[in-house]
Amino acid sequence: MSTAEIGLIGLGTMGAALALNIADNGFDIAVWNRTSAKTDAFHEGAGDLARRITPTQTLEAFVAAIKSPRAIILMVPAGQPVDDQIAALRPLLDADDLIIDAGNANFHDTNRRSAEAGDLPFLGIGVSGGEEGARFGPSIMGGGKRESWDRVEHILTAIAAKHKGISCATWMGEQGAGHFVKAVHNGIEYADMQMIAEVYGIMRDGLAMTSDAIAETFANWDNGALRSYLIEISGKVAATQDPATGRPMLDVIVDAAGQKGTGRWTVIEAQHLAAPIPAIEAAVVARNLSSQREARAAAEVLFGSAPHHIAHDVLPLSTIEDALIAGKILCYAQGFDMIAKASDAFDWALPLPAIAEVWREGCIIRSAMLDDMATALRENPERNLMMAPRFADTLKQTHGALRQVVAQAALHGLALPALSSGLAYFDAMRTGRGTANMIQGQRDFFGAHGFARIDGGSGHHGPWAA
Amino acid sequence: MSTAEIGLIGLGTMGAALALNIADNGFDIAVWNRTSAKTDAFHEGAGDLARRITPTQTLEAFVAAIKSPRAIILMVPAGQPVDDQIAALRPLLDADDLIIDAGNANFHDTNRRSAEAGDLPFLGIGVSGGEEGARFGPSIMGGGKRESWDRVEHILTAIAAKHKGISCATWMGEQGAGHFVKAVHNGIEYADMQMIAEVYGIMRDGLAMTSDAIAETFANWDNGALRSYLIEISGKVAATQDPATGRPMLDVIVDAAGQKGTGRWTVIEAQHLAAPIPAIEAAVVARNLSSQREARAAAEVLFGSAPHHIAHDVLPLSTIEDALIAGKILCYAQGFDMIAKASDAFDWALPLPAIAEVWREGCIIRSAMLDDMATALRENPERNLMMAPRFADTLKQTHGALRQVVAQAALHGLALPALSSGLAYFDAMRTGRGTANMIQGQRDFFGAHGFARIDGGSGHHGPWAA
Repeated sequence: MSTAEIGLIGLGTMGAALALNIADNGFDIAVWNRTSAKTDAFHEGAGDLARRITPTQTLEAFVAAIKSPRAIILMVPAGQPVDDQIAALRPLLDADDLIIDAGNANFHDTNRRSAEAGDLPFLGIGVSGGEEGARFGPSIMGGGKRESWDRVEHILTAIAAKHKGISCATWMGEQGAGHFVKAVHNGIEYADMQMIAEVYGIMRDGLAMTSDAIAETFANWDNGALRSYLIEISGKVAATQDPATGRPMLDVIVDAAGQKGTGRWTVIEAQHLAAPIPAIEAAVVARNLSSQREARAAAEVLFGSAPHHIAHDVLPLSTIEDALIAGKILCYAQGFDMIAKASDAFDWALPLPAIAEVWREGCIIRSAMLDDMATALRENPERNLMMAPRFADTLKQTHGALRQVVAQAALHGLALPALSSGLAYFDAMRTGRGTANMIQGQRDFFGAHGFARIDGGSGHHGPWAA
Repeated sequence: MSTAEIGLIGLGTMGAALALNIADNGFDIAVWNRTSAKTDAFHEGAGDLARRITPTQTLEAFVAAIKSPRAIILMVPAGQPVDDQIAALRPLLDADDLIIDAGNANFHDTNRRSAEAGDLPFLGIGVSGGEEGARFGPSIMGGGKRESWDRVEHILTAIAAKHKGISCATWMGEQGAGHFVKAVHNGIEYADMQMIAEVYGIMRDGLAMTSDAIAETFANWDNGALRSYLIEISGKVAATQDPATGRPMLDVIVDAAGQKGTGRWTVIEAQHLAAPIPAIEAAVVARNLSSQREARAAAEVLFGSAPHHIAHDVLPLSTIEDALIAGKILCYAQGFDMIAKASDAFDWALPLPAIAEVWREGCIIRSAMLDDMATALRENPERNLMMAPRFADTLKQTHGALRQVVAQAALHGLALPALSSGLAYFDAMRTGRGTANMIQGQRDFFGAHGFARIDGGSGHHGPWAA
């Protein structure tokens, strides 16, 4: 009894993988699941690792199996199940026992649960990397009291992914800070995937390339500045054939994208923060539009098929690669800017460089570029990432390519919502004298809202003629 | 005593204007304001209309001055003040007295207040048109119980703007339906203003036109398909000179746009509804970016001044006009699509054609095009507005111009977030076979989320190589 260093509740796909990862790293772990059969099956399937795993049949036995002061990870579905599990668990625990919600919580819920926990130890950690990440090394973003994090840091850093020996598990701040960072990660993931889908569309419909040629292009790009998990798997997806039909797998998959809502949370939060993340917003819109297949089919009949072929010398693959590099930098600049704004608004001290570091391995958006971003943010965490010297230099070299791609797509009828929003963001940012003076003039004209003058003072009104 | 047909609380700019409008239309009205001095000043300044206005010094006297069953309009700041005012008022009222919140409420608050009112009569009405609209004829969007609306409809239709004799005051549905429609109105207003600011930027920075020439262009456009209040006042704003410096007023106004949050509400609600409104999202982003003046100045130093001149024969004014026509249609199509989705989601029966009709006069987005939209929506309220014959024809004639404008702006460094998002929306809609199959392939690769096959069935998985 009481031999496990940690406990875990919820042996679904992610929970089971995480428990095996913990055991694999030499920690004894007690596990419990609502259905006991699942617990038994998990233990029986654990092979050599079974000796480090204590399966339990009741919540009481589970709690008794963990060394005091206890640390217990919850891996149950986000929302009410987390609250229910905490309510069932707390009466069985001591005041210094730590509950860790490692599910996909909305950070507002984690803020609330932190407040409800009061002095009782509670952490909310974001875990990214899917099943494989959970099993062999995820990216872990922690939130809650620092002293609670310190108690389990040795376990979390051991099970997390490593980048050149540095663990991708970091405490981000109080309350829901970890789940907030995870939400922005997911928002960036949406935008990164959307931009890849857009260049896939250029190659397929604009350049009339085969799936094999597209696969080869992604594979080539994975050896350059775009090197990343998402580019790698995009190449593999494009290279895969459907066993049933022999056709490229991509041609068999319906073009309607699902979503679990985390991109939406990020966009909503950005609105509250007044943080401009147009690439992420465009990606969420694109997923919503993708599901309107009937309306799209009707519009195609009405307006004609959109894509027209573009000559390869008008849009060489290297230009498309550079455009994607520029788009990616601008997307990440938006995401980190949003994190900086949240850090101020919520009175957190979110460690921007450390966030770039934990995203270098383990999570879906892991990439070579994040290593450079970490360096740039260490040099100056206050500065918009697009203005960090190394990224500013890259943007200077690549924004011309992004212009070519957006212009050609506009002329040829290819939809590039995320990439074109990235260019608009870049151009709005580099325009010292913007056009919102017209908006302020309109607002003062119809609503007497007042405006600031460039020679000083605010609340001025125009001598508008009626 | 008890002679007033209606009462009004809150004599701020909007409340005072609305009270005068009501008196001007022949209705006796009792008014009350938290500060009595304001009530007295209002009454003294009402001129000939004073005889129809009963100023009161206490809430009790106010209530006593209104004929039973009473109807009382609240024009107090949105949020807690409305709840406070209702709480203070209800104990003085009879069970059949009607409270009307005519302020700028978030429709979720109106839903809640409707529920809290229970059987007690309560309406939430959106009033658009600014001070002048409130005084001489606003657009009124009502929500709440139909029988409550019927009690005051004769007053509201009398004071509202008229389009060819038809009043711009309509009951939209239960609960917060009126305030919801008003929120979408404001979102569209943001996008409409942003698109105008973008073409202003093309003319100023791309074509190096003077403010006078820009004013003349807007004035010309106001005689064509773009005829609208916003185009009209944009021309007047551009034509106005600063008395202090003699310079064009536009050149004196700081390029940082304010906002009161209603655009943000619309974007947040669109996320919950999974309604794609990219033009409105882009407009909100543009306002947020406009306030980052220091970062923009730094980016301009780093990346160089963005605008480069475009030859007038490359981008004639008629092409810009056509691009704005296309952008406007696409923006309104998004807004009405969002209303249709809300109608389903909230189990309302929002009358899309009637909404287009109440927006024809009185409100900020009033325009000639809304008359055609009303007709198109009467013909088929289910269809996306861009596919209604008259708008499809216009889009067929103008989307080429939108392509030229977006392409030239991309090449020359001019930011067109709303117009380019409109083009991306159009091209995504007309692409029967989109690119979300790549996203579904990625999601299945890293998360085993499953995908639907074009030959049937869902929940399929790929034979992905590791």
